[in-house]
Amino acid sequence: LIQTLTIVGVGLIGGSIGLAAKRRGLAGHVVGVGRQRPSLDEALAVGAVDEVSLDLAEAATRSDLMVFCTPVDRIVEQVLSVAERCRPGTLLTDAGSTKAAIVQGIEGKLPKDVHLVGSHPLAGSEKKGPRFADPELFENRLTAVTPTPSTDPAAVKRTVTFWKSLGSRVKIMSPDDHDRALALTSHLPHLVASALAGMMPDDLRELCATGFRDTTRVAAGDPSIWTGIFQQNREALVIALTAFGSRLEFFLRALEKNDRTVLDALLAQAKRNRDALGS
Amino acid sequence: LIQTLTIVGVGLIGGSIGLAAKRRGLAGHVVGVGRQRPSLDEALAVGAVDEVSLDLAEAATRSDLMVFCTPVDRIVEQVLSVAERCRPGTLLTDAGSTKAAIVQGIEGKLPKDVHLVGSHPLAGSEKKGPRFADPELFENRLTAVTPTPSTDPAAVKRTVTFWKSLGSRVKIMSPDDHDRALALTSHLPHLVASALAGMMPDDLRELCATGFRDTTRVAAGDPSIWTGIFQQNREALVIALTAFGSRLEFFLRALEKNDRTVLDALLAQAKRNRDALGS
Repeated sequence: LIQTLTIVGVGLIGGSIGLAAKRRGLAGHVVGVGRQRPSLDEALAVGAVDEVSLDLAEAATRSDLMVFCTPVDRIVEQVLSVAERCRPGTLLTDAGSTKAAIVQGIEGKLPKDVHLVGSHPLAGSEKKGPRFADPELFENRLTAVTPTPSTDPAAVKRTVTFWKSLGSRVKIMSPDDHDRALALTSHLPHLVASALAGMMPDDLRELCATGFRDTTRVAAGDPSIWTGIFQQNREALVIALTAFGSRLEFFLRALEKNDRTVLDALLAQAKRNRDALGS
Repeated sequence: LIQTLTIVGVGLIGGSIGLAAKRRGLAGHVVGVGRQRPSLDEALAVGAVDEVSLDLAEAATRSDLMVFCTPVDRIVEQVLSVAERCRPGTLLTDAGSTKAAIVQGIEGKLPKDVHLVGSHPLAGSEKKGPRFADPELFENRLTAVTPTPSTDPAAVKRTVTFWKSLGSRVKIMSPDDHDRALALTSHLPHLVASALAGMMPDDLRELCATGFRDTTRVAAGDPSIWTGIFQQNREALVIALTAFGSRLEFFLRALEKNDRTVLDALLAQAKRNRDALGS
């Protein structure tokens, strides 16, 4: 049991952590911290938190576990701004979609007995705000937990237990492995969906059916959040994008040559991979 | 009322046409024609057709309206193989995702009083077979009907009425306009989803969450059907793919320069376009 769980940033992910923690009896008291009153009030209204606060530093002084669910490019600054206020034993973790920049930006800068362990629950959607929070969001999803060789092993264990208690499976990875993998599985698809959606002329909108809608759905995500993710993982994303460009070249050559065999092979491999994923 | 409606190819689309026509009392008798017994039996079992047949030429002799729901690269040959058997007044249409090659391949080669009007209902999914047929599939969807200057106006009118009677809205377009538009709204997204799915290493599968699943869903479609579509629309698809490549270059340059302003603008434009589409 966590006595006081503080969730910094009560959007879809933060709100879902609160709902899941309360429903599962995981936390005695859940504090939601944010910068904007309306979003905090909404989190309170949906029952995701017991108390809301605009004062991050004050909340830090009485937290046992703090989860930072803010945009990736704000997490380092927020963690470092409050670390000195935390009591010994406080565990800090996050839900950011990039890990290396966050973990490296904090490691070695925390007081003794205050620990950060990077996390990334692979859950969420293009929707935004605590009204879309879902206590089952983490059920059977995977959360990446990303310690480094210097991370305190007991803190890693507590972090793993936390996510498992919310219903998630957990995979331990290094921050760099995480970022390289997510560049391919998440950040590149977001970029590609955004490129497709962005180039669509308005007058063709009525001709966009289910296929287009599915393929571009994530492009409805918050641009400022995704710009931060792209910037923090830009090295791996450039590599992924370049590999994707090469793959598109295969399709282009096959189309130019009208090569049925190659087109068939490319589409069949894609189908095998996609079928293996399930719906 | 259509006395005898013949559906050639009773997969998801053909089966849905049969279910919708029967439920709406649109056809006195619905014949399903195919090449494989199991799929025909399934169409009969789900109630999509009243009768099944392996004999396309015989079915043609007693049809008032024939809808070809076969792969785009088989439609021209099938239509031309049976046109001479049709009674005067028989209307032929199709549900193919490309239009110019089909319409041009048939136009001028039909007997007097047998008419083809190209159609493309923008409905369907990556699923396959009559067991996924849905009588509501065309409800509020758009069907493109693609006459040319030589198409019989009364036949166009009957085709429009047919699709509207199935619940669809109808848009009249030239075959070339259709193909250029669908290259962007459907064929390019399919190619892009397939490129993404195809390049994903097996060991990253567990890290593919909702975003990846949505973005690549259509890649589960039948490769042989999509190879035919790509080949029939390859000129427009090459142009669309080249434009998409240029758009990816904007992202690549912005990432290389770490240019937050440009990344934000690209993602914001994508979000505006995607939001305008609705879920």
